[in-house]
Amino acid sequence: MNQPGPVFLPLGFKFSALAAGIKASGKPDIALILATPGTTAAALFTTNLVKAAPVKAGREALARSRGRIRAVIVNSGNANCATGVAGLRACNSVCQKAAQLLNIRASEVFPSSTGVIGVPLPSQKITAKLPALISAAAASLNHLRSFADAILTTDSRPKLASLPLKDGRASVTGIAKGSGMIHPQLATMLVYLLTDISASPPELQVALRKACTNTFNAISVDGDTSTNDTVLLLASGESGVALRSVRNQFETALLEVCRSLAEQIVADGEGVQHVIRLRIEQARARTEALQVARTIAHSLLVKTAWAGADPNWGRILAAVGRSGINIDPGRVSVLIGGQTVCRNGVACKFDEHRAHQELSQAESRVIVKLGRGKSSLEFLTTDLTAEYVRINAEYST
Amino acid sequence: MNQPGPVFLPLGFKFSALAAGIKASGKPDIALILATPGTTAAALFTTNLVKAAPVKAGREALARSRGRIRAVIVNSGNANCATGVAGLRACNSVCQKAAQLLNIRASEVFPSSTGVIGVPLPSQKITAKLPALISAAAASLNHLRSFADAILTTDSRPKLASLPLKDGRASVTGIAKGSGMIHPQLATMLVYLLTDISASPPELQVALRKACTNTFNAISVDGDTSTNDTVLLLASGESGVALRSVRNQFETALLEVCRSLAEQIVADGEGVQHVIRLRIEQARARTEALQVARTIAHSLLVKTAWAGADPNWGRILAAVGRSGINIDPGRVSVLIGGQTVCRNGVACKFDEHRAHQELSQAESRVIVKLGRGKSSLEFLTTDLTAEYVRINAEYST
Repeated sequence: MNQPGPVFLPLGFKFSALAAGIKASGKPDIALILATPGTTAAALFTTNLVKAAPVKAGREALARSRGRIRAVIVNSGNANCATGVAGLRACNSVCQKAAQLLNIRASEVFPSSTGVIGVPLPSQKITAKLPALISAAAASLNHLRSFADAILTTDSRPKLASLPLKDGRASVTGIAKGSGMIHPQLATMLVYLLTDISASPPELQVALRKACTNTFNAISVDGDTSTNDTVLLLASGESGVALRSVRNQFETALLEVCRSLAEQIVADGEGVQHVIRLRIEQARARTEALQVARTIAHSLLVKTAWAGADPNWGRILAAVGRSGINIDPGRVSVLIGGQTVCRNGVACKFDEHRAHQELSQAESRVIVKLGRGKSSLEFLTTDLTAEYVRINAEYST
Repeated sequence: MNQPGPVFLPLGFKFSALAAGIKASGKPDIALILATPGTTAAALFTTNLVKAAPVKAGREALARSRGRIRAVIVNSGNANCATGVAGLRACNSVCQKAAQLLNIRASEVFPSSTGVIGVPLPSQKITAKLPALISAAAASLNHLRSFADAILTTDSRPKLASLPLKDGRASVTGIAKGSGMIHPQLATMLVYLLTDISASPPELQVALRKACTNTFNAISVDGDTSTNDTVLLLASGESGVALRSVRNQFETALLEVCRSLAEQIVADGEGVQHVIRLRIEQARARTEALQVARTIAHSLLVKTAWAGADPNWGRILAAVGRSGINIDPGRVSVLIGGQTVCRNGVACKFDEHRAHQELSQAESRVIVKLGRGKSSLEFLTTDLTAEYVRINAEYST
């Protein structure tokens, strides 16, 4: 599921979005999901010890409501992070006002924020627009798309993925944002996964964790783990299909939706020209493969070589050597595209022109064999371009 | 000792350099130091598990000669790394040929290589030039400078530092190269430290390790640890001054020479526009401070903010939060230049224009207080510019 296909509208959800004046550009910057009564929820959050106010508030809301969520309110343009007690208060005032207008509990409102760190959240701008935001909500694909647009920051395009279940009787649809500060650890930037099957919150939590391990937790654009990472899964139950009756089918659909969103996030990484599908093989354990993958994926020299489509495998080997895994260099091999370029730690003769052409494609494949065991892992990452530097040197506080 | 001062010529050493045709540019690419009989030596090498042939051969030479070195032969333009058995054989053939011409043991010849990884070393090009290289050697500052020039690769300028000892009766002079793949772990790219005091190899080893801890081991340009890192300290004894009679003075001079070379390496980092003197305070231990410093120094978002002289401290705080140290965000403070920009995890009012101006200087100061203990550390690092990307995307295999 590389390319986004048709988007299904799971039953039981309404969407809306508006401009509240948080983004200087004047673009839509607040967005809402309304969920039908009885909707269950599970979430994963950033492991960064610096956590934004909405991450703390969202975690608490799920605990207090025992996994029941009726509304999701997202603002873009401001991360509400490193804003102290005032930041938590601002976040709570938005949730309380929404709860009052919707006649639900404040703990049933799940907040998210994304944008610049360390700037006070102008919560009055949001609360002033809440009545209009709520009354505009509707269950249409256009409204869903307006939600997906309004949560973006440096993203160049919205990220959607969707799959039907049980002959179209139910569906899973995911909406994500994220382009920089992408090195998720348990979750990625902001991801909303919606389904109309019925499931208990613990069932959802198990499925969500499984789906994230090899998707959002195996990607990196720049190695920086966000303070606001959140993946939220909501199940409305409106299809009448129970998770336990379609467990395998549901888990597969959820995994594929997460995989597609993860791929869309990487492909839309800031300044990215080349996506690299990095496969680590012959590791002793998945954690070991992940450590090697991350060291390679975060090496500036490897990433800049990829920007130039340069098959400079020596930089990859050097990264493996400093990864902290006790590899034997004499057993490490590297493949670029279809060719082995380094076998057992030593240069191979290979067609450099062909390797350059393969690395010049939008997506290419690099395999590193560690010669230590049977564990393997696929990790999705990117090159590092001058455009990335331009974007992030100019993005001002 | 920020700026290189006058260079002293330690007694007992001769220098030469030539072009052997390894660099495509035709610039000098082989260089020689000849040391007087009785010269003692100590060295530190890269901790990268992928080690170049000369690193293995140099370590063995020191062991076999029990710390006696008579000649150092360096080539630039080829790292002789990931070249397998043939690479070791090429390295040894150069040392053996030099030993034969100089009528010394092969284990008294210390080899170094720097340049691209994974390309066979054309050792015949070097051995063919050895007679000319040896006969050209002389004990002059000009010859020393020709050595410093010939060992460079992407460096924009040679790196020298020198201090007199004991009223000028002895001296310490250091020569370094290094501009990319700079994140030394026990040593940095190539550094040659020469002194004419007399000392046993173990005395030199102790002094060398002390001097490197807070200099070469506390800098980073791009987070990539080289496969060829070597710091070699040679003591000719020709001054007649014994190390043990001037231990403090010698250790201070060695430290200052190493500090100056480390600063020169960082300032000449690939594409570097701004050097950041990053100070981590209130850590529980030096290792903890180092882990936080490295996480900040390797964050692409922090480094690109520095490129734009952007006082975006939120990115610094986010890096601290993912550093793996169990910090309490509510106790972390950040200072940029003379201003506190974040106090106890929360934004402070500060003069953004002034912070921008301070970060616009060639060198500026960032302090992060962890609120955990009394250990502190100074770490020297750089911004990440589009020029860095250009250099490394174009540097071809």
